[in-house]
Amino acid sequence: MKILVTNDDGIYAPGIQALAEALKAVGEVAVVAPDRERSAVGHALTLHHPLRALQMGENIFAVDGTPTDCVNLGIHDLLPFKPDIVVSGINRGANLGDDVTYSGTVAAAMEATLMGIPAFAVSLVTEGVGKNYDTAAEFAARLACRIHEKGLPGDTFLNVNVPDLPRDAILPARITSQGRRRYEGNVVGKLDPRGQKYYWIGSAELSFLDKEGTDYHAVSRGHVSVTPLHLDLTNYASFQSLLAWTLE
Amino acid sequence: MKILVTNDDGIYAPGIQALAEALKAVGEVAVVAPDRERSAVGHALTLHHPLRALQMGENIFAVDGTPTDCVNLGIHDLLPFKPDIVVSGINRGANLGDDVTYSGTVAAAMEATLMGIPAFAVSLVTEGVGKNYDTAAEFAARLACRIHEKGLPGDTFLNVNVPDLPRDAILPARITSQGRRRYEGNVVGKLDPRGQKYYWIGSAELSFLDKEGTDYHAVSRGHVSVTPLHLDLTNYASFQSLLAWTLE
Repeated sequence: MKILVTNDDGIYAPGIQALAEALKAVGEVAVVAPDRERSAVGHALTLHHPLRALQMGENIFAVDGTPTDCVNLGIHDLLPFKPDIVVSGINRGANLGDDVTYSGTVAAAMEATLMGIPAFAVSLVTEGVGKNYDTAAEFAARLACRIHEKGLPGDTFLNVNVPDLPRDAILPARITSQGRRRYEGNVVGKLDPRGQKYYWIGSAELSFLDKEGTDYHAVSRGHVSVTPLHLDLTNYASFQSLLAWTLE
Repeated sequence: MKILVTNDDGIYAPGIQALAEALKAVGEVAVVAPDRERSAVGHALTLHHPLRALQMGENIFAVDGTPTDCVNLGIHDLLPFKPDIVVSGINRGANLGDDVTYSGTVAAAMEATLMGIPAFAVSLVTEGVGKNYDTAAEFAARLACRIHEKGLPGDTFLNVNVPDLPRDAILPARITSQGRRRYEGNVVGKLDPRGQKYYWIGSAELSFLDKEGTDYHAVSRGHVSVTPLHLDLTNYASFQSLLAWTLE
């Protein structure tokens, strides 16, 4: 099994190193990752300036772009093989609920899926630096084997969140749905020394609706959460009501 | 009706000006938009540096961030009112198929929906500078009224694409599904004067599967396309097959 590993925390992050190490036990691993942290970049593509790829070792490259850029460059140019699977992570911090759409880690898995390559994102549920990357890495290696063996449903990739717990404290994986963030005002305005206002986005505390069956519900109880996400965002159930609208 | 207008082409783009103008006929309009072009930024949030908002007029602000940042700042701080609807566009160029996940224009509508505010994105299907922004702007004004009157289905926003045609040449709107891009190799490698390689992402030509019922199929035949998109990306249909996997 040939595996492309990427992330959005940058090529030196402990998460990607633990992940690449664990995956080496189950396949041939290449790493193409951003040269620095690129969190919350979403599914951003770099179109307005050229990209550089710095070779760091055999099939290891640092790119001055986003995770989505890395998947493109890796598959179309840098690697000597087409990967059988793309694994993105291990992200430092959860990617749960609506936040998946902001995540560069998740976007890399989405990009691979667009190219027809099975993929998943894996994140460690921590608000600090994270301790148990090895727990998440082991799970990722098992999951990669399972995907390689069984394939994934069409146009679908997996978003995996692993509690930051030692291996023997982790509860079994659950297949979950994407949860909902509890939306709160999250802009902080301040004054600079010249009296001009500036703003920070993002509040210190995140909260999610604790609904059974969701990713948040699973990880907050110590389970690994595996959420199948689809490329097609269409809300087909809304067609009937919208077709009744007069739009001309 | 109170309307927040944003975009990803920047506050000086002709599309946002035509849109704001047309919406003034149906409501009170505020504009909070990026100070420059921020295309293909996806659902990116600026978390690592503070943001500035420059007031350009009454309830008109230019922000040095992404469209998603603009929606946050507008709603949480800059505007004297909570908008009844957020309209993002008019984008110069289509946002069709899988490309919606790269689009800053579409992400702004997604962000508003996360905050519980009805929203849609509107794009002009053009590969050049675009001619008929007024056609798209008039359609957007009618659609805003319809949404204000009827509301949108839960957790759902609309992605609208309008062919670049004069008003009387446009065919009726169709409710469509998100189409599929035909994925092709899209990385170009070149050498700089020092013999070092650099890369451009993105090929010159986009192509889509011409499947009936999709956004691409509708606009390529002269129809306005209205696609309802959902915040929840979960592929529920895949649960049965995934539950059969052994992951421990």
